[in-house]
Amino acid sequence: MTETKAQAGRRAAVFVAGSWGTALASVLAQNGFDVLLWTRNADQAEQINTKHENSKYLPGVKLPQSLRATTEMKEALQNAELALFVAPSAAMREVAKQAAPFMKETTLCIHATKGFETGTLKRMTTVLAEELGRSPDQIAVLSGPSHAEEVIRKQPTTVVVASADLEAAEQAQDAFMNAYFRVYTNPDVAGVEVAGAIKNIIALGAGLSDGLGFGDNAKAALITRGLAEISRLGTAMGANPLTFAGLAGVGDLVVTCTSKHSRNWRAGSMLADGSPLDDVLERMGMVVEGVKTTRAAYELASRYDVEMPITAQLYQVLFAGSSPRTAVENLMGRLKTHEIEQIE
Amino acid sequence: MTETKAQAGRRAAVFVAGSWGTALASVLAQNGFDVLLWTRNADQAEQINTKHENSKYLPGVKLPQSLRATTEMKEALQNAELALFVAPSAAMREVAKQAAPFMKETTLCIHATKGFETGTLKRMTTVLAEELGRSPDQIAVLSGPSHAEEVIRKQPTTVVVASADLEAAEQAQDAFMNAYFRVYTNPDVAGVEVAGAIKNIIALGAGLSDGLGFGDNAKAALITRGLAEISRLGTAMGANPLTFAGLAGVGDLVVTCTSKHSRNWRAGSMLADGSPLDDVLERMGMVVEGVKTTRAAYELASRYDVEMPITAQLYQVLFAGSSPRTAVENLMGRLKTHEIEQIE
Repeated sequence: MTETKAQAGRRAAVFVAGSWGTALASVLAQNGFDVLLWTRNADQAEQINTKHENSKYLPGVKLPQSLRATTEMKEALQNAELALFVAPSAAMREVAKQAAPFMKETTLCIHATKGFETGTLKRMTTVLAEELGRSPDQIAVLSGPSHAEEVIRKQPTTVVVASADLEAAEQAQDAFMNAYFRVYTNPDVAGVEVAGAIKNIIALGAGLSDGLGFGDNAKAALITRGLAEISRLGTAMGANPLTFAGLAGVGDLVVTCTSKHSRNWRAGSMLADGSPLDDVLERMGMVVEGVKTTRAAYELASRYDVEMPITAQLYQVLFAGSSPRTAVENLMGRLKTHEIEQIE
Repeated sequence: MTETKAQAGRRAAVFVAGSWGTALASVLAQNGFDVLLWTRNADQAEQINTKHENSKYLPGVKLPQSLRATTEMKEALQNAELALFVAPSAAMREVAKQAAPFMKETTLCIHATKGFETGTLKRMTTVLAEELGRSPDQIAVLSGPSHAEEVIRKQPTTVVVASADLEAAEQAQDAFMNAYFRVYTNPDVAGVEVAGAIKNIIALGAGLSDGLGFGDNAKAALITRGLAEISRLGTAMGANPLTFAGLAGVGDLVVTCTSKHSRNWRAGSMLADGSPLDDVLERMGMVVEGVKTTRAAYELASRYDVEMPITAQLYQVLFAGSSPRTAVENLMGRLKTHEIEQIE
């Protein structure tokens, strides 16, 4: 009887059970989906199934009853109308590889991960397309100013779903849209993915600046130059410049650089006191995408011949032993004198 | 002897002695100018001259010795190489009218006021040009993410000086530029003035949103839509769209909507609990430019046939008795489904 009922309902699979994956899984559950959240961690799965909690990533929050967890890939994807990939960028290919044998062609595929693949510098839609044997056009990306801690508490949030296939984008929009979670479509997949990845670098820089005791004026200048840097790389990679003026661009950049919930900002502020990167990452205890993304963007800047001064300074701090203060001072000092030149 | 030395030095006049006028006057004084800060208030002038303090606007800060105050317009402008107008928008015409008889043609004229003239809806360069008998092209505007409280403490700050006359912009740049105060030129006067004025409306909205308990995700969406609203009006008024991606655009918008120093944000957050506008303005005790600007922008939106939903909702709250909660909910709910449509 239960089985029949479950089969009649709409099913969604979500990978993996970090804070953002769990928050988006909850949105789907509240919208009427039976959601299976896949995780490698059996203890975490049990906690979600028996206590309706994900205490490591979203402490103090009760998860919906229709959100369950599993460690079995086959079970996660059985009859799934929708598969949402929110694995860290470094784990995306492996998770997709494991999911591939159980994914039906008709399952709508969406991701919400912000970063590039290390080494190959590929965007996440490309990685998913390769592993799932689909065209990248058949994969959508969800992004925007959306801290998990607020979404899980049903605070008003707006995001973008981008796909080259408008129908896929609209299907994703229908699945996620509700009174507190507003979803807009955008055809520009490259722009949304680049903006989502690079803003984490700028957030590390904003954290450094705040950690060093610079003020809000300095941080606003950094955010402004960060937006220009994102736009330059994105446009070189084929994006629509208007995307960077939207929710996935300036919206996500602002929230990541100014909100207390931002883990990239927090990591940056911890680096400001001179702590070694490894220590900071260990103290964070969660993936800080901006660190890997700094290396990737540093390489992309060279590949596409684009000026990315913030990325270059962060690269020096993270991987070449530069002092955070020197890096921020370099950024404040080296600006050009005619503003429009640095925006274009 | 003192007189000779003073005459040999470079002189600047600054109107009036609010927080931003005083902070910019201090920058000029630190850069070697003998600065006279004009104020109508004799007690304030005496406090500045004897105690080197402006306790109402910048409490706890020691002002430079070479910054003095006067209530005499003639004295303020005597041998002034540079005149900086930072009067509230509502007082600008009257202050310029009083200054006009004492202004030499060769005195560089700059303003740093964010708003339109009530009724006429004129930009500040136009008001100054009319009263000073110059072309608007001979007047520069200084703007950007720059809270006075940080500038006066020499925290790193970047601003834009815009003038149709590049030479005037570069003269202004030379006067203000120093190690902590970085100045960039931009030829787009209309864009810089519109951005500086309208961001105060968005900051009122951000304050309302925060005051009602909405989170950082909602505020980021508001800022994103606010930037689009600023760009739409500015472009209709002849601005270069790139200006809105720069320091005077997104930079100033971000700092005004997210910093604890922003008085427009603070007024918005006080309105959130349903306090009447008059009470809030009385409790603030300082000019809140965003209130007058909301009325002006509401009229400009109609004159230029531009959609300004945030301005329209704020207008309803400030002047037509709408509830703050209804206004913010209307803004969250009425967004279009295809993002690029709302940016263009």
